[in-house]
Amino acid sequence: MNAQYCISFADVEKALINIQDFVHLTPVLTNSTLNQATGRNLFFKCELFQKTGSFKIRGALNAIRSLISATSKEKPKAVVTHSSGNHGQALAYAAKLEGIPAYIVVPQTAPNCKKLAIQAYGASIAYSEQSDEALRPSVKVYAAEPLNADDCYQSKLKGELTPNTYPPETIADGVKSSIGLNTWPIIRDLVDDVFTVTEDEIKHAAQLVWERMKLLIEPTAAVGIAAVLSQHFQTVSPEVKNICIVLSGGNVDLTSLTWVKEAEAERPVPY
Amino acid sequence: MNAQYCISFADVEKALINIQDFVHLTPVLTNSTLNQATGRNLFFKCELFQKTGSFKIRGALNAIRSLISATSKEKPKAVVTHSSGNHGQALAYAAKLEGIPAYIVVPQTAPNCKKLAIQAYGASIAYSEQSDEALRPSVKVYAAEPLNADDCYQSKLKGELTPNTYPPETIADGVKSSIGLNTWPIIRDLVDDVFTVTEDEIKHAAQLVWERMKLLIEPTAAVGIAAVLSQHFQTVSPEVKNICIVLSGGNVDLTSLTWVKEAEAERPVPY
Repeated sequence: MNAQYCISFADVEKALINIQDFVHLTPVLTNSTLNQATGRNLFFKCELFQKTGSFKIRGALNAIRSLISATSKEKPKAVVTHSSGNHGQALAYAAKLEGIPAYIVVPQTAPNCKKLAIQAYGASIAYSEQSDEALRPSVKVYAAEPLNADDCYQSKLKGELTPNTYPPETIADGVKSSIGLNTWPIIRDLVDDVFTVTEDEIKHAAQLVWERMKLLIEPTAAVGIAAVLSQHFQTVSPEVKNICIVLSGGNVDLTSLTWVKEAEAERPVPY
Repeated sequence: MNAQYCISFADVEKALINIQDFVHLTPVLTNSTLNQATGRNLFFKCELFQKTGSFKIRGALNAIRSLISATSKEKPKAVVTHSSGNHGQALAYAAKLEGIPAYIVVPQTAPNCKKLAIQAYGASIAYSEQSDEALRPSVKVYAAEPLNADDCYQSKLKGELTPNTYPPETIADGVKSSIGLNTWPIIRDLVDDVFTVTEDEIKHAAQLVWERMKLLIEPTAAVGIAAVLSQHFQTVSPEVKNICIVLSGGNVDLTSLTWVKEAEAERPVPY
């Protein structure tokens, strides 16, 4: 484990103070049908209602605000990232709040609705081919005018991290934590069990949340629900009664839901 | 106007007392993107999170509880209705709470997910052909054993109303009001303007709510949003600043969303 990525509870508290005036306190919902199906009390933390549609705004805001407040440096000249989805929207919005230009590289094949949302937050979009290599361009590739990489906040890019800035991964992890989650190095010490869920189970769980809770989560946000619905979870002690599941995001591409029709065809017809 | 359908504010208050222990106090959400698009402060009353997925549970519960509490009659032997959607689910759930058998007639063509939801609330499903005449069968048609129509609470059926019961229409209307809405006879006196919205405008509004608010409303629940987004609404005085829109239900058939793909194809591609 690389010590560089370890964050403390104090870091998480600091992140929350940094961002709390700019994020929603999202509601926690319950659903009796899903409680019955699992035999537990499920509490759904609705981060799909968060600003920009996912918890990612926490990381993006904390990253930019930490750069400005915690160092003696000036604001970065620009923020740059590659992301076709939640992180791109989040960084665009966070940069707009601070009046910093944002450049978001998205694959040409990204859904139109996501590109439109990024643009609506005032960011410039640049296109890349849908390949791992092309997804990680240097800042020079897409900025409208040549930018010095040292002047930019870069996230998820190929190049080395900008020197003398707070390591972005640390910040991002720290801010995921501000939902109330602990991060991977902490979770790894606390974790009781690991659950494997299949793509079909995740889709089934997402469909349940749409139909019964009317929450338009993205399928990846249904992983936790798929886990508590799984056979494996029934081996967990009944004393584990109250379970909080973070519904992490709602940026679903509505035009890609062809699998719903297939799933429907497999369901029993009521007699 | 038929005086029989007039209800007073006191009726609405009585309805709320009748049902308040069995319904959710649903949240009111706001959305900055939609506020910006309309230039108003929109408050969305989320009745799609209501028990059984729509405000219809208010009417069904009040109808059944009024029959039991406000009259000296015994419980009805059964409740019967025809509805492929919200009302069928609501009546099934309300009947289950009171331990009364429910018979719901649905068209053979109704979406599978709606039939499953009705069944999950313990009601018996009977199928009708999709035609106006067939949708209004007499109670005799579908009850498992012969029932005397006088012993049943009937809703939306062809036959005469059961004598000596509180008129169901009045009850149902009264309970829509318990959301905070007034009913048609009252609205008619208060109404300032009437807005016409097209099917395309409603679909556009529904898509906006899905994408930006992550709320899986049914398209008909988007009528109010389509109205405030319309050209016509811009003629309404800017003093009309705070607007409450009831998101009435969330029972969308996910397999029928082929129009989303068509709508997407017509949207501008971001440059």
